[in-house]
Amino acid sequence: MSYAKPIQVFAVTGASGALGRAIVQTLAGPANRHIVLVGRDQRTLEELAGEVAAGDSVLHVVSGADAAQPGAAAEAVVAKLLDVLAAVGGERVGQLVLVHSAGTLSDLRKRADQYGNDEIAAYTTVNFVSFAVLAARFLEFAKDTGAERIGVVNISSLLAIQPFANWGLYAATRAGRDQLMRVVALEHANDPRVKTLSYAPGPLVGDMQASVRAEIADPAQRELYDRLHREGKLVRPADTARLMCDLVHAWEFESGAHVDVFDLVPPPA
Amino acid sequence: MSYAKPIQVFAVTGASGALGRAIVQTLAGPANRHIVLVGRDQRTLEELAGEVAAGDSVLHVVSGADAAQPGAAAEAVVAKLLDVLAAVGGERVGQLVLVHSAGTLSDLRKRADQYGNDEIAAYTTVNFVSFAVLAARFLEFAKDTGAERIGVVNISSLLAIQPFANWGLYAATRAGRDQLMRVVALEHANDPRVKTLSYAPGPLVGDMQASVRAEIADPAQRELYDRLHREGKLVRPADTARLMCDLVHAWEFESGAHVDVFDLVPPPA
Repeated sequence: MSYAKPIQVFAVTGASGALGRAIVQTLAGPANRHIVLVGRDQRTLEELAGEVAAGDSVLHVVSGADAAQPGAAAEAVVAKLLDVLAAVGGERVGQLVLVHSAGTLSDLRKRADQYGNDEIAAYTTVNFVSFAVLAARFLEFAKDTGAERIGVVNISSLLAIQPFANWGLYAATRAGRDQLMRVVALEHANDPRVKTLSYAPGPLVGDMQASVRAEIADPAQRELYDRLHREGKLVRPADTARLMCDLVHAWEFESGAHVDVFDLVPPPA
Repeated sequence: MSYAKPIQVFAVTGASGALGRAIVQTLAGPANRHIVLVGRDQRTLEELAGEVAAGDSVLHVVSGADAAQPGAAAEAVVAKLLDVLAAVGGERVGQLVLVHSAGTLSDLRKRADQYGNDEIAAYTTVNFVSFAVLAARFLEFAKDTGAERIGVVNISSLLAIQPFANWGLYAATRAGRDQLMRVVALEHANDPRVKTLSYAPGPLVGDMQASVRAEIADPAQRELYDRLHREGKLVRPADTARLMCDLVHAWEFESGAHVDVFDLVPPPA
């Protein structure tokens, strides 16, 4: 009998984005934890791995994961997770979690009738198909391990449940991802190992929100986001990452649920 | 000044399916109405056009519209609508409506983690991208005509708002389509010509429901649908097509709304 704590393995996509980076930093620390940083560029990920205060956790890198190539990206993630589990040998795996933070803004200068045909197809591949493929391959793999808790965290958005002008493809793909997570939850109602969570992190301090403020065609939204920015009321990635990680560690969320950061803390006035 | 009624133009995709056919038949009759039947197979569509009791309406056919080729399919529909409007010359266009009834079931034998990568990509193209592209090209075109009422009717499903096991890709793509329609509605809040509607027609008598009963892996759903089928409680395409067409003719629905057949008539006991 081993007295060691069971190991925990997290794969974080979009690891080099502001939120992904904050999630990696929040997770890092414990000796029994392996964190796989997933992204496109090897050097960016290695720099990130070097900057994170890893504590006793072990960081791994999967580069070349291009959301425009969903099958190849998913295979690369699963192959790395297999390596990690092989390296820890027969240790108990307490938690095996995919956090999907990769994603792009759709063109906020446009109404839905201004999107180009190729733009719609390419955006959908990167922001819906890549997630559905990765979630499928991750779950297929994870259920075949001895992991005691298997989680898929879909980094979602208020837009998944509330529409706003100029967010057509972003909102539609997030609504689709949320609904897929609800179906997966029902499909594992009798498999207590598996849970899914759609987490809306809020409007974040950082480059993505700067793009929103610069590009959004709808003047009312531009004004709202400008005000939140000026008044320092945008959400800090570290804060929302902490709230999300606390949910996952506690493992008490309802599987399939959409949880917004402002369900957990008061929204800005 | 003309005393003629303004003309009405409807394009119905998936016209050769059970629901599409019922919609075409329900719309047909008035002399001022043009109905464009959209589908893949020329012969099937011509046979359908021959079978419909067209009354004084004019039927048109667009074949070769393959949802796996969204751009080409959308171009073919818009080109035909341009022809129709050119042929009626300067007459007032009272209503110009796209009814998107095309779509396929996802593989109901599978959980989401059993889908193949290519299956996810191909299904998403046919059931989400094709709709988003057609809606975009239709609206872009329609807003440039003198049409007084411009509608996009997304044939949706209960699955868009309520998840069930084994419906992952179907549910996710319908949730995405509904959300896109809500965004389009907001984007035209100041353009009273344009409305969108997501209409869930109910579980229909016909081949698609027969496939559901034959294939669905979830025993509870199989039992439910078997019972509805045995007890004659599935919805008849003609009935739900009539309810949807009445909504569109009245033009009083809230733009962007998801309306279920059982919001309009009592559900089966």
